[in-house]
Amino acid sequence: MAHRVLRCITDFFVYETAKSVVVKSWSVGIINRVVQLLIILYFICWVFMHEKGHQLRDTGIESAVMTKVKGLGKFNNRVMDVADYVFPSQGGSSFSIITSMVVTANQTQGKCPETEKMFKCTTDGDCMNKLGSNLGNGIVTGRCLNNSDGTDGQCEIEGWCPAEDDTVSQNPMKEVENFTIFIKNSIRFPLFNVTRGNFPSSLNKSYIQTCHYDPVYDPFCPIFKVGDILRHINQSLDSITDKGGEIGININWKCNLDYNVTNCNPKYFFTRLDAAFENSIASKGYNFRFAKYYQSEDGPERRTLHKAKAIHIEIIVSGDAGKFNSVPFLINLVAAFTSVGLATVFCDIILLNFHKGAEEYKAKKFEEVSDVMSEPASNRLYEGSQMSIKALEKRSNDSGTFSIGRRDPSNQ
Amino acid sequence: MAHRVLRCITDFFVYETAKSVVVKSWSVGIINRVVQLLIILYFICWVFMHEKGHQLRDTGIESAVMTKVKGLGKFNNRVMDVADYVFPSQGGSSFSIITSMVVTANQTQGKCPETEKMFKCTTDGDCMNKLGSNLGNGIVTGRCLNNSDGTDGQCEIEGWCPAEDDTVSQNPMKEVENFTIFIKNSIRFPLFNVTRGNFPSSLNKSYIQTCHYDPVYDPFCPIFKVGDILRHINQSLDSITDKGGEIGININWKCNLDYNVTNCNPKYFFTRLDAAFENSIASKGYNFRFAKYYQSEDGPERRTLHKAKAIHIEIIVSGDAGKFNSVPFLINLVAAFTSVGLATVFCDIILLNFHKGAEEYKAKKFEEVSDVMSEPASNRLYEGSQMSIKALEKRSNDSGTFSIGRRDPSNQ
Amino acid sequence: MAHRVLRCITDFFVYETAKSVVVKSWSVGIINRVVQLLIILYFICWVFMHEKGHQLRDTGIESAVMTKVKGLGKFNNRVMDVADYVFPSQGGSSFSIITSMVVTANQTQGKCPETEKMFKCTTDGDCMNKLGSNLGNGIVTGRCLNNSDGTDGQCEIEGWCPAEDDTVSQNPMKEVENFTIFIKNSIRFPLFNVTRGNFPSSLNKSYIQTCHYDPVYDPFCPIFKVGDILRHINQSLDSITDKGGEIGININWKCNLDYNVTNCNPKYFFTRLDAAFENSIASKGYNFRFAKYYQSEDGPERRTLHKAKAIHIEIIVSGDAGKFNSVPFLINLVAAFTSVGLATVFCDIILLNFHKGAEEYKAKKFEEVSDVMSEPASNRLYEGSQMSIKALEKRSNDSGTFSIGRRDPSNQ
Repeated sequence: MAHRVLRCITDFFVYETAKSVVVKSWSVGIINRVVQLLIILYFICWVFMHEKGHQLRDTGIESAVMTKVKGLGKFNNRVMDVADYVFPSQGGSSFSIITSMVVTANQTQGKCPETEKMFKCTTDGDCMNKLGSNLGNGIVTGRCLNNSDGTDGQCEIEGWCPAEDDTVSQNPMKEVENFTIFIKNSIRFPLFNVTRGNFPSSLNKSYIQTCHYDPVYDPFCPIFKVGDILRHINQSLDSITDKGGEIGININWKCNLDYNVTNCNPKYFFTRLDAAFENSIASKGYNFRFAKYYQSEDGPERRTLHKAKAIHIEIIVSGDAGKFNSVPFLINLVAAFTSVGLATVFCDIILLNFHKGAEEYKAKKFEEVSDVMSEPASNRLYEGSQMSIKALEKRSNDSGTFSIGRRDPSNQ
Repeated sequence: MAHRVLRCITDFFVYETAKSVVVKSWSVGIINRVVQLLIILYFICWVFMHEKGHQLRDTGIESAVMTKVKGLGKFNNRVMDVADYVFPSQGGSSFSIITSMVVTANQTQGKCPETEKMFKCTTDGDCMNKLGSNLGNGIVTGRCLNNSDGTDGQCEIEGWCPAEDDTVSQNPMKEVENFTIFIKNSIRFPLFNVTRGNFPSSLNKSYIQTCHYDPVYDPFCPIFKVGDILRHINQSLDSITDKGGEIGININWKCNLDYNVTNCNPKYFFTRLDAAFENSIASKGYNFRFAKYYQSEDGPERRTLHKAKAIHIEIIVSGDAGKFNSVPFLINLVAAFTSVGLATVFCDIILLNFHKGAEEYKAKKFEEVSDVMSEPASNRLYEGSQMSIKALEKRSNDSGTFSIGRRDPSNQ
Repeated sequence: MAHRVLRCITDFFVYETAKSVVVKSWSVGIINRVVQLLIILYFICWVFMHEKGHQLRDTGIESAVMTKVKGLGKFNNRVMDVADYVFPSQGGSSFSIITSMVVTANQTQGKCPETEKMFKCTTDGDCMNKLGSNLGNGIVTGRCLNNSDGTDGQCEIEGWCPAEDDTVSQNPMKEVENFTIFIKNSIRFPLFNVTRGNFPSSLNKSYIQTCHYDPVYDPFCPIFKVGDILRHINQSLDSITDKGGEIGININWKCNLDYNVTNCNPKYFFTRLDAAFENSIASKGYNFRFAKYYQSEDGPERRTLHKAKAIHIEIIVSGDAGKFNSVPFLINLVAAFTSVGLATVFCDIILLNFHKGAEEYKAKKFEEVSDVMSEPASNRLYEGSQMSIKALEKRSNDSGTFSIGRRDPSNQ
């Protein structure tokens, strides 16, 4: 019994390794080493250097953005400051700078004629057809107003009156070109607990008050001139103030934390976000409506409706960080070592098919054994003796494999 | 010396390949090919066709959303338009449509009785217990008001008076069902520099002004009727206007850029975002408070407080794009080729354990060599001669491996 | 012909497996098994238990956040409630709680002296130099006002007058410490269609009205006291109310959906988001400007400008979910099985280089074949006969490989 256990243990600690054929051929040897070199180069250049295979990556970047717009403009003979033209006012990552407005002052609830062309009418019937329309400035009552002379009437609406007439156009606030956007972006890579800001603490107050971002000369200045951004995306001021538009400021963090953390700095990219709709006939630009509400002590509620065309700015933060970590490093190292063995697959194909001594190599590499089951039963009598093995050893004409047991008396 | 260097170089360009045993057995051969076929099918169907293993993927989708709500409703005998019921007004990816409000007009700073039931009192002591409470409409002063007849008093508060009484209920604005939401979503895949909009440029203005999104008939129409959305998520209008609620509009971009870029179109999904709290007793629905502030020339500041129940809509953009790239293609191709070899592992198990001629195969496959160290020292004398090798060659009863050097004189 | 096809089919269903050398050595056997054990342990502990290699992962978490702030404070002798101090009012995932304000009441459009120190002047020339500046409260006209006695003048500006004087300081609203933030966060994992809320439906109304989040005692309470949050991030109330600041509330969902879905609960983390700028001289804290607009029936538009210092709170939801799926499970299982074979690479190095019987093992493992091409042409005459093979079999002195064909008559 103890003997058996010992035998089991002995058998367990047996080591198996593949039997190899060593081919002393310059041509195949060189091909083999070149392919191995290519595999090693692939791992060094692509897996480790380009893809940073030895690093643990944190893609769950946490970001907080604070923005502050500065600048003074004139619109409709009024000076506009930040509180007037930035929406919403809190300075988040998404905000609009109003460049032009259609102002409809002193609206109160009541009934009045619609201003839109599509609500023109000659009879009440024309307006009855438009009951329930969502496209007007108020609820269509079904009456046609101002059509005493038989033409040119407008449907009556119920709602805020007078209705907005957005065909009135004002010169947009051109000074927007000189407005500056200050961006404070702090990010954190939770996996490595690394916190970074988009500008170094060492920047002094006077530099920050005067600098403007430039990709070459002031890459760390967190203040962006609207005019500069427009130049970066090849847009003219007129093209964007005319209808409004959406601009993306992309802050991209790609950090290699194996180097000093002070090298972890963002890159800025600018895009026109509504570029996809450039050729679209419908719905160009960016505009929205808002109202300011007024009420005197006992009077009715009044409001001033604004249809604002604006430059909408969206700050998009993306990025990831990598840092050396033994686990991915070891995995990729093992992958690299085992992949070197793949050269064999390629060289075997050459050696066994295209090399001049292919048949000889096949004879060396392959050893043949036929299906015991398909052999005549007589052979099985010799099982356990050398004969049965000998009987199994035959020449395979097809693959050129050569059995090693060639000391067959019949062959000698 | 030169000879030695040459020898080193010669040895370096030596090619090693595994020696193979070729088994001519129909059963194992078929199993082998079937397993190889399954592995190839797995790579073709799963890795390449389903997982798009030959493509480089860009998951860092950049998105900009602009929304515009249209529709007119009546609430409390007033006509409400976009400027009245959409919060915030700029038309971003997250906004609320107010369906009902509790309006508390003409509030000024002062002292007045609380309205909440939990601030009922009979003595000042009852109110002193509630000092510092955050649940009322103002700061509790500690006095009990209107308790002259011994019951039914309310604690006095300091703050905006009169206090809001949110038990007053108004009919919600039912017209919200016919409101439409226009969504302009432009996305960019930065890796491939591909920009797409959620509707084709070819859509003409009149179609966009009249169409409503339908997954079957109008999949490219960017205008969504609120009532349709509610139907998609199996919610009745009453269930959501009653308490307010949160709806998600998911825009999903899955783009295969190997095909024409015009095939890169979004799919829309709708969800009730607060579904997780459906059965929760506490805090149902969606509501928020805001105030409009008024001030006459010399009077005190007044405000109108609104407690608004709203449908909150969140537009969630997700997606990724893939495009053929030689690096992932080659990596997966190599993986496919080498994985085909894995069939051997499976077939070896069958061949060496469950096949009828298992012992014979073992004899062919395994060649045994014992630990030289554990051999008697006498054997070491013969080291280098053929004898030592012969001595090492023994029959292993356990694994059935059979040494090839069976030309042992004792056997013959 | 039929014979040939049959032969092709027979050859196709041939099975090839590597010929192995079995080494009966305790030392190498134990090393082999230990290395194999380490590889298996790596797969069990790291790949399957830590990295959840048997699960399909959904990282595209969809989230909706609703927040509600409660609390009453006093600022400048006025009671402030939610409608006064929360911006924006809709209760989204990003909002500001105003803790202090510089209020400039009754501004109208006009001309007045600047208040900023940097706009001091003695002559009009000083002000002409500042034309076009964006740093003041209005557009510099170029005149120097109030410089009658030769000193201490201020440039004239055009805009909202009187200009804001932000050196006036008020006591911040200290009660913010007791304000509570209720967070309703519902998430969805689209791949598994699992919807979860951040608090269980079973929480009753009275608990939710009184509880405060605590990581140990009340981990499911969705109500967070501002003072508690500040304690979690080691910040004093004064440090944040003084200048304003940004706080992140991180809701992290890590769900293993192989267990009951009720175990899928979030964890909360708190960070000071502007920590990166702690040591920065420029631009500390968090503040923004907004205005309330007033207009009497026929008077000019007036506004009250507020420069608000605020605690900005950003709720960041992250997470992923995993669930057993046969595809990743099988892939990793196959990877585990094949990786066990890697132990050979390591053991071969030991066996063939550092083991005492290295030469003998090499002789067994390697079988040599020289390049047929480099052999003398005479040998080629014997090609196909046994002799040519014999001629190829030589002793390699370098790698110690030993040809098996040692039945060479010259050797015997």
